[in-house]
Amino acid sequence: MCATSANCEQALAVLLPPRAACANPFRMARTGFFSGSFDPMTNGHLDVIEHAAAFCDRLVIGVGSNPSKTALFAIGERLDLVREAAAPILKHIGCALEVVSFSGLAVEAARKAGATLIVRGLRDSTDFDYEMQMAGMNGAIAPELRTVFLPASSPVRPITATLVRQVAAMGGDPSPFVPPNVVKALKAKFSG
Amino acid sequence: MCATSANCEQALAVLLPPRAACANPFRMARTGFFSGSFDPMTNGHLDVIEHAAAFCDRLVIGVGSNPSKTALFAIGERLDLVREAAAPILKHIGCALEVVSFSGLAVEAARKAGATLIVRGLRDSTDFDYEMQMAGMNGAIAPELRTVFLPASSPVRPITATLVRQVAAMGGDPSPFVPPNVVKALKAKFSG
Amino acid sequence: MCATSANCEQALAVLLPPRAACANPFRMARTGFFSGSFDPMTNGHLDVIEHAAAFCDRLVIGVGSNPSKTALFAIGERLDLVREAAAPILKHIGCALEVVSFSGLAVEAARKAGATLIVRGLRDSTDFDYEMQMAGMNGAIAPELRTVFLPASSPVRPITATLVRQVAAMGGDPSPFVPPNVVKALKAKFSG
Amino acid sequence: MCATSANCEQALAVLLPPRAACANPFRMARTGFFSGSFDPMTNGHLDVIEHAAAFCDRLVIGVGSNPSKTALFAIGERLDLVREAAAPILKHIGCALEVVSFSGLAVEAARKAGATLIVRGLRDSTDFDYEMQMAGMNGAIAPELRTVFLPASSPVRPITATLVRQVAAMGGDPSPFVPPNVVKALKAKFSG
Amino acid sequence: MCATSANCEQALAVLLPPRAACANPFRMARTGFFSGSFDPMTNGHLDVIEHAAAFCDRLVIGVGSNPSKTALFAIGERLDLVREAAAPILKHIGCALEVVSFSGLAVEAARKAGATLIVRGLRDSTDFDYEMQMAGMNGAIAPELRTVFLPASSPVRPITATLVRQVAAMGGDPSPFVPPNVVKALKAKFSG
Amino acid sequence: MCATSANCEQALAVLLPPRAACANPFRMARTGFFSGSFDPMTNGHLDVIEHAAAFCDRLVIGVGSNPSKTALFAIGERLDLVREAAAPILKHIGCALEVVSFSGLAVEAARKAGATLIVRGLRDSTDFDYEMQMAGMNGAIAPELRTVFLPASSPVRPITATLVRQVAAMGGDPSPFVPPNVVKALKAKFSG
Repeated sequence: MCATSANCEQALAVLLPPRAACANPFRMARTGFFSGSFDPMTNGHLDVIEHAAAFCDRLVIGVGSNPSKTALFAIGERLDLVREAAAPILKHIGCALEVVSFSGLAVEAARKAGATLIVRGLRDSTDFDYEMQMAGMNGAIAPELRTVFLPASSPVRPITATLVRQVAAMGGDPSPFVPPNVVKALKAKFSG
Repeated sequence: MCATSANCEQALAVLLPPRAACANPFRMARTGFFSGSFDPMTNGHLDVIEHAAAFCDRLVIGVGSNPSKTALFAIGERLDLVREAAAPILKHIGCALEVVSFSGLAVEAARKAGATLIVRGLRDSTDFDYEMQMAGMNGAIAPELRTVFLPASSPVRPITATLVRQVAAMGGDPSPFVPPNVVKALKAKFSG
Repeated sequence: MCATSANCEQALAVLLPPRAACANPFRMARTGFFSGSFDPMTNGHLDVIEHAAAFCDRLVIGVGSNPSKTALFAIGERLDLVREAAAPILKHIGCALEVVSFSGLAVEAARKAGATLIVRGLRDSTDFDYEMQMAGMNGAIAPELRTVFLPASSPVRPITATLVRQVAAMGGDPSPFVPPNVVKALKAKFSG
Repeated sequence: MCATSANCEQALAVLLPPRAACANPFRMARTGFFSGSFDPMTNGHLDVIEHAAAFCDRLVIGVGSNPSKTALFAIGERLDLVREAAAPILKHIGCALEVVSFSGLAVEAARKAGATLIVRGLRDSTDFDYEMQMAGMNGAIAPELRTVFLPASSPVRPITATLVRQVAAMGGDPSPFVPPNVVKALKAKFSG
Repeated sequence: MCATSANCEQALAVLLPPRAACANPFRMARTGFFSGSFDPMTNGHLDVIEHAAAFCDRLVIGVGSNPSKTALFAIGERLDLVREAAAPILKHIGCALEVVSFSGLAVEAARKAGATLIVRGLRDSTDFDYEMQMAGMNGAIAPELRTVFLPASSPVRPITATLVRQVAAMGGDPSPFVPPNVVKALKAKFSG
Repeated sequence: MCATSANCEQALAVLLPPRAACANPFRMARTGFFSGSFDPMTNGHLDVIEHAAAFCDRLVIGVGSNPSKTALFAIGERLDLVREAAAPILKHIGCALEVVSFSGLAVEAARKAGATLIVRGLRDSTDFDYEMQMAGMNGAIAPELRTVFLPASSPVRPITATLVRQVAAMGGDPSPFVPPNVVKALKAKFSG
């Protein structure tokens, strides 16, 4: 699940500022934590993941397993779908990927994962209001973790996992909204 | 203006994920670009700057010099005030700092600065709406640059440079809103 | 349920642009689709319906029957209340009315109804954010359907069916918020 | 500038609801009014225009000539650019187009144009808040005119004419944001 | 400019909680401060003023005289129009009224007026975002002053003084938006 | 539960405007009503309560007991926690406090409590949209009651009772978000 040296060095060649800017060739490594229920993963999630790789050396994706909520996909299925879809993107950029399940507070899971950055996607003002509350409370609970918001790219701004599930349940085509492996999994889920 | 090796290595020791996660000890270096008119720099700007240092190895602060707008502080004064206030914070974190003036599009200035990340602070929905437009258009102009939003910390959410200028102009005390060097500069400006 | 010729022609006389503008006396007919749970219909819904008649020749109102949600009024009651309240308004304007029940995706129901316009009312930013997501996803699912937003008139902006049900359940007077036939139905429901 | 009979009839064949729904083959004709400064017209404006054609038989575009504001393009240039870009789109849909200049209140210009619908595009909550004020006040001034909001399509949501002018003024490429004739006009304007 | 004893006592009789609740017949007196440019006063302002009288014993209306902004009405005219329109409403409720001009920070004017409450009207999210900034900064400048927000009543939510001036300048009828004395003043201003 | 005469008089001495402003030494007494589920009371609630005391002589806190929702704390516990935390703050300001439970509509409970003001805290746009609906509908149901919004102070803006429960349930430290008596009650609840 780890970016190869070759990947890292290639990225390094492109992205390193001229030596004049900093005498130390070593750079701080950053681990981001991006959590959600991913039921299922959508192109909106992938947009955040690709975006996060621009400033993380290692991204931990936390898939929430909430026993009191009924999910369409089991936690194991969700972990697999996230890993399959995210791995090639992060490998190409040279960012290490880990996909873990967690229950409870995302901020605690981020700590356990060794993250210093909490990564959140923003689609609209409603997201913004909710995420400002979370960022504010998380900042009081874990001041060493910093929250970073990523603006949704235009084509994925309207995507919600809730409507993806409804579309698929009705026999509709979810392919504009989710990666190919999730399209397949949705078809299998609803064809039976 | 550069973070010393010692700073970088210290940070490295703390922040590097265990080797198991990635065999390559080198990490990608990131340069962020944070622009504004900084007329004057406020504690809200400092909050963004400190926050950005959590994921940038080098931060370039672009101070916009717009000839058609009358500023309270001349461009040279603003550059000095920003540099003085930001340098000790970034040095402590081990992030290199550059402060530059620019005119024209911020996205072009970010490119020239060798940045890969555009850093923006968000205080409220009005900021969010404006910044989503900028991020969307900048993404079309310069797809290699990624925009990152940083949530304002609670105590600095209400601060605006416009009101800071008004408070100081009326003989009020701007010290809850700006760093000490700006308090001094404001007093000098309005005592005459 | 259909607007009489007389109604249509009268409207035509008023609304047709001068012949100079278009040599063809035939105009495109438009069917709008307006969906909701209408549990119960409110004056806010009626405001949207009257407003939609300004650009639809035929309006199909889709009353969602969601078996997993407990409604105050049965689907048959809701269909009747909607029809009774909307019919005289649309007849007067000369717009044909159809009231249908549906389950599943509203966009599929709109297609089945032969609609080319999806009509949504907007009261506030929270509505706006939600409806932009729906419009965006519906545009991907059914590009031939166009979503149109109608601003709530000032007096009905605060009305929500949820609070109407609570007011009535508590023995309060719902008459400022719903049409007379719904007032009657609410009283009957809660007097028992 | 008028849709031909052939266009209208073709559209009619597709869009007319079954005769059972309304015995009258004549339909109400609708004129929409869409105003702005169009300095210059963008792909965001074109998105609204195409969208409006889904429920208007005739669309009047009002180009505001505000003598107290300095525009990049003269009013005559703006009228020409709007007409050139919008005409083929509306011709294809079978909607008549008129492009007029106006000064003063848009609602008065809409009245003069014989419109019954005021058409506005919405990109975000800031637009929404402003447009709700306009719709509310216009509803009091001219109750016979109805305001209709059109959700910006995802790819054009971030476009603003202000930034388009800045991009072009800086020698940047405005082609992701404006139609080809405006690209050409911007180049001519800034090459001199 | 002061509410008569009779007024106060009548209100007192209605509003005083039973003696059991508080043995002291004396109550704290509150002074609110409501500021704006009032160019001209609108029904939206009157709505705030009437609303504020529900919790103020004395309301000071601060009319901002900003020498760098060109106003339609001179400061003296604005003071008179505000006083004429507000006086009968506040007299009826039994709340003392003072109308003053001020320049500079509203919070300083509020202090000088002996106010303990800063009163602000809210129409929409854009107002809310701006007013949260003001409330936050004013809270730091003058912690002894508390900001209170009043929700605009539905009928006056869309009113803005800017559009009122435009309507009147165009010869339109401003009477749905402003009190009768302002209608008259606007007519006089634009008839010349 | 009532503020002593001494308290009231002390406050009176500070807050009474000079006699010149109003010849009548008696002032209208105001009762505010602030409702919620308080499950549990947070520092955000206390901020509203303290703020409300600036314009209320008596504050009634309504703790909603909704039989269909499972609360963490029983209604009796919540009443006690609210009373304990709020009493010293209101005593100090000289505002009488009553804490009551209610079921059904808050507006009816406010009436029963003899309130003339409904007090609501606002943290963000999402709160604002919801509260504008409530204020609008409550204004139609009970026009004699006025709604007053209080801006959350910066440090408590992000606090939500929902996340407080989650933090405590996970063994986290809720002390940055709730008063000491609630910290203790949460520990007791989750230590068992």
